[in-house]
Amino acid sequence: MQTLACTTLCLLATITARTIPDDYHNERRALLDEETLTAVGGKQKLNDEETLANEILMKWKTDELNASYLNPQHFNFSKHYFSYKKDIEKSKVYQIIRSMPKGSVLHVHSSLMLHPDILVKLTYEEYLYACYTNDNIKLQFSKAVPERPCGNKWALVSDLRNSSGDPDVFDAHLRDYFTLYRADGEDYDFVDINTVWERFNKVYYAIKSLISYRPVREKYWYETLKQFYNDNVMYIEIRTGLHSLYELDGTKHNKRYLAELYKNGTDKFIEEHPDFIGVKLILTRHRAQSIDHIVDAINTTRELKAEMPDLIAGFDLVGQEDLGRPLSDFIPILSEAKDEINLYLHAGETAWLGTSTDENLVDAILLGSKRIGHGYALTKHPSLMSALIKKNIALEVNVISNVVLSLVHDVRNHPLATYLALGLPVVLSSDDPGAWSAEPLSHDFFVAFMGVASKRADLRMLKQLAINSIVYSSLDEDRKSRLFSVFNERWDKFIKNVICNKFYRDVEVS
Amino acid sequence: MQTLACTTLCLLATITARTIPDDYHNERRALLDEETLTAVGGKQKLNDEETLANEILMKWKTDELNASYLNPQHFNFSKHYFSYKKDIEKSKVYQIIRSMPKGSVLHVHSSLMLHPDILVKLTYEEYLYACYTNDNIKLQFSKAVPERPCGNKWALVSDLRNSSGDPDVFDAHLRDYFTLYRADGEDYDFVDINTVWERFNKVYYAIKSLISYRPVREKYWYETLKQFYNDNVMYIEIRTGLHSLYELDGTKHNKRYLAELYKNGTDKFIEEHPDFIGVKLILTRHRAQSIDHIVDAINTTRELKAEMPDLIAGFDLVGQEDLGRPLSDFIPILSEAKDEINLYLHAGETAWLGTSTDENLVDAILLGSKRIGHGYALTKHPSLMSALIKKNIALEVNVISNVVLSLVHDVRNHPLATYLALGLPVVLSSDDPGAWSAEPLSHDFFVAFMGVASKRADLRMLKQLAINSIVYSSLDEDRKSRLFSVFNERWDKFIKNVICNKFYRDVEVS
Ligand SMILES: [Zn+2]
Ligand SMILES: [Zn+2]
Repeated sequence: MQTLACTTLCLLATITARTIPDDYHNERRALLDEETLTAVGGKQKLNDEETLANEILMKWKTDELNASYLNPQHFNFSKHYFSYKKDIEKSKVYQIIRSMPKGSVLHVHSSLMLHPDILVKLTYEEYLYACYTNDNIKLQFSKAVPERPCGNKWALVSDLRNSSGDPDVFDAHLRDYFTLYRADGEDYDFVDINTVWERFNKVYYAIKSLISYRPVREKYWYETLKQFYNDNVMYIEIRTGLHSLYELDGTKHNKRYLAELYKNGTDKFIEEHPDFIGVKLILTRHRAQSIDHIVDAINTTRELKAEMPDLIAGFDLVGQEDLGRPLSDFIPILSEAKDEINLYLHAGETAWLGTSTDENLVDAILLGSKRIGHGYALTKHPSLMSALIKKNIALEVNVISNVVLSLVHDVRNHPLATYLALGLPVVLSSDDPGAWSAEPLSHDFFVAFMGVASKRADLRMLKQLAINSIVYSSLDEDRKSRLFSVFNERWDKFIKNVICNKFYRDVEVS
Repeated sequence: MQTLACTTLCLLATITARTIPDDYHNERRALLDEETLTAVGGKQKLNDEETLANEILMKWKTDELNASYLNPQHFNFSKHYFSYKKDIEKSKVYQIIRSMPKGSVLHVHSSLMLHPDILVKLTYEEYLYACYTNDNIKLQFSKAVPERPCGNKWALVSDLRNSSGDPDVFDAHLRDYFTLYRADGEDYDFVDINTVWERFNKVYYAIKSLISYRPVREKYWYETLKQFYNDNVMYIEIRTGLHSLYELDGTKHNKRYLAELYKNGTDKFIEEHPDFIGVKLILTRHRAQSIDHIVDAINTTRELKAEMPDLIAGFDLVGQEDLGRPLSDFIPILSEAKDEINLYLHAGETAWLGTSTDENLVDAILLGSKRIGHGYALTKHPSLMSALIKKNIALEVNVISNVVLSLVHDVRNHPLATYLALGLPVVLSSDDPGAWSAEPLSHDFFVAFMGVASKRADLRMLKQLAINSIVYSSLDEDRKSRLFSVFNERWDKFIKNVICNKFYRDVEVS
């Protein structure tokens, strides 16, 4: 008996010795709390209904992630986006995010916004000729066979489709020219950045040849707005080079015409959808062009901005950064222009550290860029990160774009994880969702929330990201507060929907 | 004429307007300088000879990287290490790094240090039996056919080799059990972390079954020291579980025996190589084991440390973090032990943010770990990063290990880039170089310098990394200063060699 008592005593002593010391526990809690508070969304307060919706959201998030933690071969976000794209809709978290109001899209390129399925529908328009050469396609609307040489022969798309034997197969093949996405698993693997940009540029030129025809562009624009609206995006800032449109009779329109088309199309859309706030344009030029071309583009921006101040937000340079000129080539002209024209510069969309592309981050910041496109390289630049915080410059992060364009494979290694943890002014965007057959913004939110952000990141982060997209927009205070009203109203409905929808609710909440 | 003069004037005006403003230029310079100064090595001053050697080094580095910048399909470091391993020796930068004194290796596991080619040589020892089952191998030294069941049948390796028809093919096949590396391109692609760890554990058990035989372990140890010494490593801290060794007659030795074998083998090696400083052991236990096993291992560490204080550095937990217990399970026993036994904990060797594995970083820091193994997840934890700096805890970074064990694909996304930019206390190490057929440390230095660090990072960073490996070792002040003397002497020779060696010098320097 005595021995047993002694054993019990010893056991008790051991157990006592093996509890976590109080001050350890407190310090641990404090560190974790500090991190939660610092992260994007950490200071958001949720009301009772939001708290309940958050529990539902986090139940699904935790379930979905835990399944992968134990079976990492099922973890999608370490793989290429194309490999799991078709499964996304099955996720309950995705369904919640899809129905969530997301504020604005602030980084998207005009020709690559629309899903390729709709682009294929637009090829059913009359008078469309195609010319297939190697792995390229050229499209042109024309009453007669186009005269310009194309490397092969021009034929009416309608004839080709009718004589193809299977219009569905024909359309599927056509769609492949409008997107990098391949559903059959081909080309999922990583290719180097130049090769993928070559493919990407081909997609761009194929689409551009379709939508340079004025009547198609009008439809393109309407369908694009509809898709973004249906994805719960209420305002868009669009990068566009404002190229020239043509008519069937050969008439060519100038750049201003396209700006007006965007404006008129949007106004019409707003009439039908009064809670859609609108669009603004960030005019662009390709960074590989000569300085004179850039000067010319800045002058156009200045002129159009004077005429349509509500429409023109500012200026940017586009195209693959590594192969274009560094921003430092344009310091004199951009630093001269920046007091009149807001800059929204792409910078640091690169994995190359210490190169001229990488240094674009320095110049984007010093040139007073209002936001920075991508800023992928920023985690490797502590001094620039401090400058960014000081100047309150937002980062436009496009995770799926960075995967498809070969900057990162496993998105858990995407620098956004660090930006979120640091509470940097981040907005999520989608760059070219059409080019990868993604939803306008929901796919990017989903990948960021599930693959990049902390497992603990919750509704507060999602809400803050939506709010950021309004705060860091170029809207004036009036329109910004209108956007906030629309957002808040939709947000309340969204929260009620998450709570009441039986579909989400087959889950036990505390 | 007047028109021409006017044109010239206008042109002049344009040119004048298009120079970079002075204050812009200064601010830009200041930002870049601040970054250089902050980064690891930024405060190192180079003497004249080092400056010259640095110019030679940077000439080659720039040439090699520029070739890839324009042709990124040739950029090795975005690909799997196995795909370019055999080309490394062609690099001039590599040849310089190989000849550079590198100080210490502070993170390496005892059974996985030696190149598989040498392991194959050790299979030529007499009395070695093998049993092949599926894709596993078991090895045992024995006078008679081993009695323990093995799933297939035991046969003498010498018999198998002789009857194989081609001993070279036989050996190549045997070597595949001792390494994850495949020269033929197979299995280069990324597999999920659990699958690769399964393969990795198989390699570990194959090697362990070879080197548990006392006479082979002695040779293994000597060959290992020779390889590290030849790679210009003068001191090693080794993680080891101190398993039991056996003799041909079946005698089994206890843990202490292996500790003594390491010590005696090292002493003998030092006699022959007086500038080799020695080794220390960090005793380990598998993190998936029960708390009682861990307590047992800590007690062993305490006892051995009392007997051989110069040999035993401290304690650590090993094995795949995701599948093991979190450190939080061991807080009571580790916080009790830490005043007596230095901890060198693996933590945050994960891409999973916000999981229990990820939280290991919190506990490693709060438990007063002297250094942290990997700390891969740290960039996503600003508060922990501050705590780490405040407590001056070094990070043991193993880039190639993180690639092979599926944490990162393109090493430009490795968090080391951020750690270097922030000037964190970093040491480079190699974890298990034998398991990936790498040189003891040169491959890791090369990949870090060329693939991860800034293009601008130079000899100062390399020197600082070597110095860090001495500063953050567990050596007492006496042996540390001896190591510094050896290092400095070798460093001067190295610098002279870089400058004088015609081989490096077929390069124009200013
Ligand atoms: Zn973009
Ligand atoms: Zn390790």
